[in-house]
Amino acid sequence: MRTGRIPVGHYLNALFAPKSVAIIGVSASSRRSGNVFLDRLRKNGFEGRAYAVGRNGGVVDGEQIYRSVADLPEVPDLVFGAVGAQATPQAMIDAAKAGVQVGIVFTAGFAEMSSDGAEVQRDMVARCNELGMRVVGPNCMGVFSTGSRMNLTDVESLDPGPIGFASQSGNIALSVFDVAKRHDLGFQTFVSFGNQADIPVADYVEHMAQDDAVEIILLYLESLQENVGPDFIARCRAVAARKPIVAIKGGVTDAGRRAAASHTSRLSAAEDIYDAAFEQAGIVQVRDLDHVVAVVEALLRCPPMKGGNVAIVGSGGGHSTVGTDAVERAGLTVPAFDQELKDTFGGYLPPWAPMSNPVDMTGGFTEDLTLFQTLMRYPLSKPEFHGGLSYGLYGEGWRPGLVDDNGLTFRTAAPLFAALQRELGKPIVFYTPFAKDFEESFSEMRRSGVPCYGSLAEAAAGLAALQKRGAFLARLDGLQRTEPDPRQPGAGSGFTLTEHESLQKIAAAGVPAVRQELVSSAEEAVAAADAMGYPVVLKAQLTDVAHKSDVNGVRLGLTTADEVAAAFQQMSSIPGAGGAVDCTVSQQITGDRELLLGIRKDVTFGHTVVIGVGGVLTEVAARVAVLIPPLDAAEFAAAIERSPVAAYLGAWRGRPAVDLQELHRQVTALHEMCRADESVESVDINPLMAVGSDLRAADAAVVLESEPARGVHDVR
Amino acid sequence: MRTGRIPVGHYLNALFAPKSVAIIGVSASSRRSGNVFLDRLRKNGFEGRAYAVGRNGGVVDGEQIYRSVADLPEVPDLVFGAVGAQATPQAMIDAAKAGVQVGIVFTAGFAEMSSDGAEVQRDMVARCNELGMRVVGPNCMGVFSTGSRMNLTDVESLDPGPIGFASQSGNIALSVFDVAKRHDLGFQTFVSFGNQADIPVADYVEHMAQDDAVEIILLYLESLQENVGPDFIARCRAVAARKPIVAIKGGVTDAGRRAAASHTSRLSAAEDIYDAAFEQAGIVQVRDLDHVVAVVEALLRCPPMKGGNVAIVGSGGGHSTVGTDAVERAGLTVPAFDQELKDTFGGYLPPWAPMSNPVDMTGGFTEDLTLFQTLMRYPLSKPEFHGGLSYGLYGEGWRPGLVDDNGLTFRTAAPLFAALQRELGKPIVFYTPFAKDFEESFSEMRRSGVPCYGSLAEAAAGLAALQKRGAFLARLDGLQRTEPDPRQPGAGSGFTLTEHESLQKIAAAGVPAVRQELVSSAEEAVAAADAMGYPVVLKAQLTDVAHKSDVNGVRLGLTTADEVAAAFQQMSSIPGAGGAVDCTVSQQITGDRELLLGIRKDVTFGHTVVIGVGGVLTEVAARVAVLIPPLDAAEFAAAIERSPVAAYLGAWRGRPAVDLQELHRQVTALHEMCRADESVESVDINPLMAVGSDLRAADAAVVLESEPARGVHDVR
Repeated sequence: MRTGRIPVGHYLNALFAPKSVAIIGVSASSRRSGNVFLDRLRKNGFEGRAYAVGRNGGVVDGEQIYRSVADLPEVPDLVFGAVGAQATPQAMIDAAKAGVQVGIVFTAGFAEMSSDGAEVQRDMVARCNELGMRVVGPNCMGVFSTGSRMNLTDVESLDPGPIGFASQSGNIALSVFDVAKRHDLGFQTFVSFGNQADIPVADYVEHMAQDDAVEIILLYLESLQENVGPDFIARCRAVAARKPIVAIKGGVTDAGRRAAASHTSRLSAAEDIYDAAFEQAGIVQVRDLDHVVAVVEALLRCPPMKGGNVAIVGSGGGHSTVGTDAVERAGLTVPAFDQELKDTFGGYLPPWAPMSNPVDMTGGFTEDLTLFQTLMRYPLSKPEFHGGLSYGLYGEGWRPGLVDDNGLTFRTAAPLFAALQRELGKPIVFYTPFAKDFEESFSEMRRSGVPCYGSLAEAAAGLAALQKRGAFLARLDGLQRTEPDPRQPGAGSGFTLTEHESLQKIAAAGVPAVRQELVSSAEEAVAAADAMGYPVVLKAQLTDVAHKSDVNGVRLGLTTADEVAAAFQQMSSIPGAGGAVDCTVSQQITGDRELLLGIRKDVTFGHTVVIGVGGVLTEVAARVAVLIPPLDAAEFAAAIERSPVAAYLGAWRGRPAVDLQELHRQVTALHEMCRADESVESVDINPLMAVGSDLRAADAAVVLESEPARGVHDVR
Repeated sequence: MRTGRIPVGHYLNALFAPKSVAIIGVSASSRRSGNVFLDRLRKNGFEGRAYAVGRNGGVVDGEQIYRSVADLPEVPDLVFGAVGAQATPQAMIDAAKAGVQVGIVFTAGFAEMSSDGAEVQRDMVARCNELGMRVVGPNCMGVFSTGSRMNLTDVESLDPGPIGFASQSGNIALSVFDVAKRHDLGFQTFVSFGNQADIPVADYVEHMAQDDAVEIILLYLESLQENVGPDFIARCRAVAARKPIVAIKGGVTDAGRRAAASHTSRLSAAEDIYDAAFEQAGIVQVRDLDHVVAVVEALLRCPPMKGGNVAIVGSGGGHSTVGTDAVERAGLTVPAFDQELKDTFGGYLPPWAPMSNPVDMTGGFTEDLTLFQTLMRYPLSKPEFHGGLSYGLYGEGWRPGLVDDNGLTFRTAAPLFAALQRELGKPIVFYTPFAKDFEESFSEMRRSGVPCYGSLAEAAAGLAALQKRGAFLARLDGLQRTEPDPRQPGAGSGFTLTEHESLQKIAAAGVPAVRQELVSSAEEAVAAADAMGYPVVLKAQLTDVAHKSDVNGVRLGLTTADEVAAAFQQMSSIPGAGGAVDCTVSQQITGDRELLLGIRKDVTFGHTVVIGVGGVLTEVAARVAVLIPPLDAAEFAAAIERSPVAAYLGAWRGRPAVDLQELHRQVTALHEMCRADESVESVDINPLMAVGSDLRAADAAVVLESEPARGVHDVR
């Protein structure tokens, strides 16, 4: 296993490449956790110096147990704390006092346990930090480093390889280790960070980015620390420009977030915000844990795809059908071949062989192994195809013995596919259901650079990841790197301004509103309507109602003075309004379409923006773009383009596209307003009416952290 | 392996339980396919009489080769044809003449190859049928029957078990066999039906339904035969009431359908029509091939779920998080536990253990194995929980040796979970990442009745299938069995009536339209508008334009005579209309919401109904219910209820729900119209305006198979 250049001067060298390690919690009289880790460290051939620490001292396996880190003959780079939760803080602080750079707290029983535990954890970390020591964990499963031959994890041994892996969960890491072995993959560095009380994930990512032997970075995340979101995005994007980053997000459903929160003590942002964060950072997200190693394998072995068109050439009808479905379901396209290609294939295949993509060579043709390579070359040589899926050789696969005895094996196929992939710079992945079993036979394929999958869904996930990676790299050139937003979001339960107050507040920030007047009587309402012209909309001004239409607080399409007066009277009888409700009279305008534009504070990512289908169809359409500022105009347009609302915002049945520059200007203005006014919890504009290139708010709700002290009318 | 009662008098007994079989295509001088199949049949211990047939006669392995089926000492029940495509038709017809009941055509090179091949296939089947013989294939992989110890497939041997499996593809079957073995599952009967030239799939399903030893029926389908759709639904639903049916559909994307069509010679209906068909038939559909055996395992071993609420009790934080996500993504719910349950768990677990669903017992607690059972009992004893997921025992799993040496093994856990499942009548499934490896250790769990999965996504798919099954069984009681629709859909390229003609046609059938007049001049337009009252809508009457608004053929919101006149003039200038276009003037009404209602002919399922979000948001919302008539009012309501448009049609922001009885009446009326008038290709009403309980078409397009001979105006 080659070992890369260690990042120069990075503080995490003390974690991933320590010259000396002390295990705290070793006993001379009984076999404690500390003893197990010390044994494992030595058995795995740690290249540095390892020390045993235990409060009772003594000797274990002929080596001295020191009573404290301060007693050691040198200051170790790293300490590993495996004592009880009670004794942990003092042990860590003692190590920090001795000058240790990084401490791992394996022990559980801190923030994930109780609010008392959280306080103990906070104090311990603060004290260690003051003394210059950084902390991994608590409640974690340790660290592994091929470069140092250091195994301080819960598993006996780990295969070395090119993956850098940072996981919030130890159990998930165990599953990934197991599956990676089946794909002939191993790890350069691994860290389990549990409660992530101190070190932010981006630090691990950056260290792995600087380690030449790490070729791909894998993250299992349930949450990030508070407020670090924009920083995480900016730093990961810088890394992703050079090395692929793959992430699995646990806790994506409401119930899953509840599970994650109780397990690692952190509150997680909603799924769609993480989706946006990963997209913006160029991180390839994997939704199904079963597919994560498949995706890593593809990104490691293959060049990225420069588009989404896949050519499928294999042998076996059913698998060609299911494989085509899988590839298209993964978001890629399997375009039909043109006549020229079909004619070409006709020169090799019998007339009944399907040749229009997928190409099914049919069983008999597996006899000539080179045909797989020959036929795949034709579509992949064309610029309109970006990657290939091959499958088959079944005739040779499922009869025991033939795999190794026959000339037509997966092993002999490997160099042919690999050469084609290198020559064309386009990925080829291979599927056979037998890749689940005959592991060694497929290793040759993998070593040559062709991923080999036992599942069509995994093969499709691998290709989709290569397309995502390619799209990110293509996008990167056009985008400027933006600085992380250092502001801190707050938290609160909220006080909702009235519609009129809300529209005034956003208008002041730069988002124009429809013409509107606040009225307190039927007479005022009629006068206002007469002045602005019919039809008009009448709306009750309520501060605690999310959907005014649910309480009949909105009347659209009023075309006469009588209708306006009658509607005003009716609104005075809204339950709870006590007959004294103010109303607004607004011009009723018809737009090309109605948008939803919202901003809210997230505990991790700060202000996040939602753009979606507006009007009464908001919930029904349920399609939104989630964006995490800051975004320049190009990034904004790119993010909209790849979101589910792209079609809705585009030109459409004769209506012009929404002006994205103007939308970006308004989003930026609202974001600035929220940053400048810490009291703003959220802003919802719905509908934002698009009329030509004009965008105009017709209704809005601004939520403040709490009721303003001087009365709500002062905010105008 | 127990063998069930063979269905009495079913013609497919000749296929699945033959007393005698003849293999056609055996040679004395060389080893042909026929020889391979004959050997395999004998090696697998076939209990009936096996005969060799080959045109050159001779002797093989001491047994006579007969020159023709007619020469055999008895008329065999079944013949298996493994001769070349050229020789196949005569061989099959000879067998039919001799009185054989069923013939299997293993050979490829018929309809899947060319239109000539299709004709040969059609003629062969027609001739065989006339002579009283039914045909399996061509282009298939044979048949297997545990009851007869008969293996006439492409695999050396197959494990016996409770599954009945009918697969359109041989390769997919190979994959399923392989995965089934890993789940300790085997097959009672298997048939690969390839081109399905003769026997409809429902016949296999019904035979398996009548075979007591078949406990579950699995289908891999790429397509059904033309016109058999409604019959398939009705017959499968009758079977599904007694035994679960699971289906994988290949060829669901456009490209996948292209692949399937070229592979098995059949044109497939769109994905959403099959989705509707499986739903209506009570068939559990599996979308990911990787999950199909997991689903079969759950349905075989566990009782169905009577709701969608899952309790998760295990050990291991990361897996509890990812597992909760997987279960919720599969469409189930993981509701938080109430305080009473949490207090109960608090009596068993340390305070830091997550207890609010999922329950994470944390590592230390795997020491008491019964705790898994004890804690799972509490939520599953409550009526609001319908199934359980457990996972863990890792402490014992990943240290080699412990699995079998330690008391706390999966083996000893098995009877505890199984007893709880039996006692409560609610399913419990188990997950551990190690179920991929230690197969025998998990077999005990499976044999006891608890599915054991190596993937959280598979475990979730298993539970989701049990919920689907439970929901179908619950629904069944309220539904009447409907007879299949015997009418045959046609095919054609279509001639679109004008909007006005279309509205008149559907109004005659019973779907009321908005007030509308056909006008030929600006003056007539103004007069009509004056008569019906403003605002009005003006629409150009074009026969070949799908979206009139794309060509400015629609003007909404005209409020004065001048606007109407101007709009009329403008429409006369629509490109291609040549200045002579007629228009309609319609009342502009505002509804509670706008629906889409469409009917079109499908080659397999006949008339299918689409109900969705109407108006300009049809494409953006992209949510529809697909229904296959006939459906009575209760079935109709149930199908709407489980569709993605249920929320849109329900009560909503103060608007009343759409009247489903009236909608059902209109759907039925349109369906009757289409059945009565064979020339109608499709009907699209968009929008169908819902105003209170009223439903009224505001625009429609009726497409006929071809232009009516007597001029389109005659249809009025």
